[in-house]
Amino acid sequence: MEFVKNAIGREVPTEADGRVLTPFQGAFADPLREGKRATPSRPHSHPEHKGGERKLLANIKEAIAKTGLRDGMTISFHHHLRNGDYVVNMVLEACAEMGIKDLTIAPSALFPVHSPVIDHIKNGVVRNIQGSMNGPVGAFVSKGGLPTTAILRSHGGRVRAIEDGDLHIDVAFCAAPCADDFGNANGLHGTSACGPLGYMQIDSQYADKFVVITDNLVSFPCIPIDIPSTHVDYVVEVDKIGDPSQIVSGTTRITNSPGRLYIAKLAAEFIRKSPYYRDGWGFQTGAGGISLAVTKFLGDFMREDGINAEYINGGITKFAVDLLHEGITKKLLDGQVFDTAAIASLRDDPMHQQINLGMYANMHSKGCMVNVQDVGFLGATEVDVDFHVNVNTHSDGMLLHGIGGHSDVSAGAKLSMMIIPAYRKRIPVIRESVTTVTTPGETVDVIVCDLGIAINPLREDLIEHFKGSKLPIRDIRDIKREVDEITGGEPEQPKLADRVIALIEYRDGTIIDKVMQVKR
Amino acid sequence: MEFVKNAIGREVPTEADGRVLTPFQGAFADPLREGKRATPSRPHSHPEHKGGERKLLANIKEAIAKTGLRDGMTISFHHHLRNGDYVVNMVLEACAEMGIKDLTIAPSALFPVHSPVIDHIKNGVVRNIQGSMNGPVGAFVSKGGLPTTAILRSHGGRVRAIEDGDLHIDVAFCAAPCADDFGNANGLHGTSACGPLGYMQIDSQYADKFVVITDNLVSFPCIPIDIPSTHVDYVVEVDKIGDPSQIVSGTTRITNSPGRLYIAKLAAEFIRKSPYYRDGWGFQTGAGGISLAVTKFLGDFMREDGINAEYINGGITKFAVDLLHEGITKKLLDGQVFDTAAIASLRDDPMHQQINLGMYANMHSKGCMVNVQDVGFLGATEVDVDFHVNVNTHSDGMLLHGIGGHSDVSAGAKLSMMIIPAYRKRIPVIRESVTTVTTPGETVDVIVCDLGIAINPLREDLIEHFKGSKLPIRDIRDIKREVDEITGGEPEQPKLADRVIALIEYRDGTIIDKVMQVKR
Repeated sequence: MEFVKNAIGREVPTEADGRVLTPFQGAFADPLREGKRATPSRPHSHPEHKGGERKLLANIKEAIAKTGLRDGMTISFHHHLRNGDYVVNMVLEACAEMGIKDLTIAPSALFPVHSPVIDHIKNGVVRNIQGSMNGPVGAFVSKGGLPTTAILRSHGGRVRAIEDGDLHIDVAFCAAPCADDFGNANGLHGTSACGPLGYMQIDSQYADKFVVITDNLVSFPCIPIDIPSTHVDYVVEVDKIGDPSQIVSGTTRITNSPGRLYIAKLAAEFIRKSPYYRDGWGFQTGAGGISLAVTKFLGDFMREDGINAEYINGGITKFAVDLLHEGITKKLLDGQVFDTAAIASLRDDPMHQQINLGMYANMHSKGCMVNVQDVGFLGATEVDVDFHVNVNTHSDGMLLHGIGGHSDVSAGAKLSMMIIPAYRKRIPVIRESVTTVTTPGETVDVIVCDLGIAINPLREDLIEHFKGSKLPIRDIRDIKREVDEITGGEPEQPKLADRVIALIEYRDGTIIDKVMQVKR
Repeated sequence: MEFVKNAIGREVPTEADGRVLTPFQGAFADPLREGKRATPSRPHSHPEHKGGERKLLANIKEAIAKTGLRDGMTISFHHHLRNGDYVVNMVLEACAEMGIKDLTIAPSALFPVHSPVIDHIKNGVVRNIQGSMNGPVGAFVSKGGLPTTAILRSHGGRVRAIEDGDLHIDVAFCAAPCADDFGNANGLHGTSACGPLGYMQIDSQYADKFVVITDNLVSFPCIPIDIPSTHVDYVVEVDKIGDPSQIVSGTTRITNSPGRLYIAKLAAEFIRKSPYYRDGWGFQTGAGGISLAVTKFLGDFMREDGINAEYINGGITKFAVDLLHEGITKKLLDGQVFDTAAIASLRDDPMHQQINLGMYANMHSKGCMVNVQDVGFLGATEVDVDFHVNVNTHSDGMLLHGIGGHSDVSAGAKLSMMIIPAYRKRIPVIRESVTTVTTPGETVDVIVCDLGIAINPLREDLIEHFKGSKLPIRDIRDIKREVDEITGGEPEQPKLADRVIALIEYRDGTIIDKVMQVKR
C-alpha cells in the first residue's frame, strides 16, 4: 500500500483492494463531484406480464437462485430493524448453505445481532464489508479478521457511493414489515414495524436485483408505498424478519445522569443565545440520551420564549413528536425512527414527512436537507484541539461504531455542535489528536462539554457574537489541559499492527482517514 | 423516408429526423427491453452549500440563462394543470424573447390553452414536439406546420423513453402549486392546486436541469414532498402558474345522455358477469363521461352484491373518492386527479396513494400498476374489426388527441374494454380499419357499444365464459354491418399529403403507426 498525506495531515492509502482512492482535500473541495454517474438497474425480469411468472417465491434460497447471485458479488441490506434484524443472518446463512463465496456485504449498518457475520467471514462467504459496523463485527475486523479493507461511509456518503458508481450492488435484500406480492412495501405496519425504509430506496433504484423479504404479506396494493413494485424483482414471505423488542423501544429514554443533563442544558443555552434560534428555525436531533435531553430543553425554551421551529430533522423520537403535536415545531423530517410513538406519528401526522437518505444527506444531489438546516447537535467518542471528531474508534484503536449521519450533519448545519462529556471513566474524550478522524474540524463549530464550551476559531462570527456572554466559553486547549489534569493525561497509544483494516470515507467520496489493525 | 410493414401491417418509417426507429413487433414482443439505460442527471450546481448561491431566482429568464439553455435543446413540462396551465406559454415566450431557437418540447401533454406554441413553431423557437397534443397544436401539426416529425407516447411510454435514453431532457420546467425556496414541491396546496405532480417525477430524475416555477412559495420544508430538493436546480416565483377554473373542475359530471348511460350500464353488467368481478378485485377508471357512469354503476352493483374492490387505479374523481369513503373500495391509486374532491382526498385519506407515472405504467420497470389490474375500461375515437383502437386522430386524419394511458391500460388489464358509441353524428366509430392504430387489437378484449358487445376472438376463455349470457354479445363484424347500415357506410378517406407528420410510439418504444399530413 502506498500512502499520501491528505488535507488534514492523515496518511491515507492511494489504493485498496484494486480500488483507486482519492485523499480528502477539504470539507467543501469536492474533487469527485464532476465524476461518473451510475445507471439505474435494468429490469430484466418482468413477471407482471399476462401469463408471466409471479414475483412471490417460496423461500430465500429460491430468491437467491433466481437473482443469479454468485461468488464475488455484492449484496446489501438496511438497518431499520437495528439490533432486532433477522434478515442479514438469514440471507448469509442461505448463501453459506448454497456454497456462495467471497461476497461483499454493503449494509447501511451492522449491529451486535449480526455477529454471525464473523463466522461467514471465517468460512469465506463474506470477503469484504462496505458499511457501518457497530460492536462485535467491528471488533473482529479491528483484529484483522477481514481479508480485505472495509469501507465506512456516512448516511449521505452511502447514497453518493451508489449513485456515483463507487458501490455497485448486485442483489439487495430488503427486510419489509409490510409488503404485497408485487413488491410494494413499507415499514409502518405489522409486528416488525420500523418506520420508514429510507435507507433502502437508493438500493431499490440501483441494485441489479431487489428482493423484498416480509413477515406481513398484505393485499395488493400495499399502502403507503415506500419501496415501489417498479423496483422489486422478487418477494419472499418468512415467519419473522426481526425481534420487535429490539427493533424499536416502546419509549426512548432521556439521560438521567446529572452530569449529562448539565451538558445538555449548557448546549441548549448556547443554542438559545445563538443567532440561529429564532422563529421559523430548523434543527437536527438524534436518539442519544444527551441529544434527547437537548431536544427537551430546547422545547422548554421555545415554549417559554414563544418561539416555534419550522421543522426538526433527524432520527425521530417521541420527544420530537410531542413538540409537533404541541405546535412548537410545525414539521418533522424523518429518515429513521427510534420508538413506537414516532412510527404512529409517521403514519398519522400529515406534517411528519418521511425522507430517504439521499434527500437527507447526499451532497452529490442538487440539495439535501442537512445542508440547509440551522443547527445540528451530535455526539462523539473523541474530539481534538483541531476540532476533528472521531465517532468510529475507541482510544484503544478498536473500530466499534458506524458513522451514521455525523459528517453529513456537521458539514451541513449552519451551527454544528458536538455535545460530549470531557472524559469517560478517566479516559479523555477531548484529545490532542483523535484516534480516527470521522468528521473534519473545519465543519465543527462548537464543542460543548461539562467543562465548558469551545468555539472553533474559524467561526470568528460566533466568537464575536458570544463576546461578553455569561456562558462558560473557553479555549479548546484550556479545556483539554483541565481534562488531562483530571484524567492523568492522554491515554496510552493503541497497539497497532502494520495493516489498514478499514477506510473512513468522507461524504464526498474521498478518504479522510484509515483504521489500522489492533494487535491481539 | 423508408418504410417497413410492422406486425399489424401498418407501414412505418425506419428513421425520422436522424433517429433510427424500430417497428412494432407485437404487444408483448418488447424488442428494446435489453437496450440501453440512461443515467440520471449529474448535479453540477450545489447552491445549498455554506455561502453558496441560492436556488431562488428573480424570474423565468434568469432561470433559463442559469440553466444554460440554448438552441437545439429539449425542454419539458407536465400537464397536471391541463387547460389552465400558464407555464408552457410563459417559458416559450421567455425563450422567444431571449432568441433561443430550434427547441424540442417534450410536454406530457398540450391543451388548447397552449395554442401560442403554434406561433413559436412559426417563428422557429420550437422545432419538434415529443408529447401529446390535444386540439389546436395537433391540428396545426396535422396540416404540416411542424418542420420535423412529432412523436406521441403513452403515459408509461414517456417514462420509458426518458429512462431508456430515447428522450433526453436538457431542462425541465415544473409548474408547482406549492414549493419552498430549496425546490421541494407538491401540487396539493395553493390556489393552483392540481393534485399529484407524478408526470414530472421522471423529468426530475433525468433532466440535466430542473426548474420549479411556483405561485405559492412556502416556508422550507414544503410538505408533503412530491418533487424533492435533491432534484431541483432553481426555483422561480411568479404571480400565477395557471387558471384554477381550468385546472380542476369543482365537480366532475357524469354523462346525462340516455344513449351513453345505456352503453355504460351494458359495460358495467358485462364486468359484473365477468370472472374478474369478485371481492378484492381492482379496476382502472378515468374521467370521461361514460367512464364515470361505468364507475357509478359498478359502485351500485358492488353495494348490491356485497362485493368490495381492493383498489381503484387511475385518474381519480369524486366518484372514486365516494366509493373509498363508503368502503366499497379500500384503496385508491392516483396518477392524476380531475376534481377538487379528489385533491382533498389525496391530502387527507391515508388509503389514497399517489403514484408517479412510472409506477403507473412504465413496462420497462420491474412491475407497474396497470400490468396487474383486473379490469380497465377506456374510450376511443375509432375501433375496428381487428379490435385495433384509435384515440389520436379523427376519420378525416386530423391529429387532435394524445394517447394518455390508453395502450398501457389496455395491455396491462386482464380485461381491457373499449366503451364507445357505435357512431357519432352519423360517422362510424366502429370501422373496417382505424385511421390510426394507437392500441393494438391483441390487447383489446371487449368492445361495448350501443349496438352490443363484441369479444375479441383471441379471448376464447371469455367467449366460453359468456356462452348463454343474456347480454347482447355479438360478432364485431355484425355490429360493424349494422353501423354501416345506420350511417351509410365508411366515411370518406382522409385527403392526405405524402408526408409523415407524427409517429405513434407503442409503450415498448416501437412504432405502431404513423400520422400523415392532412391536405389543407
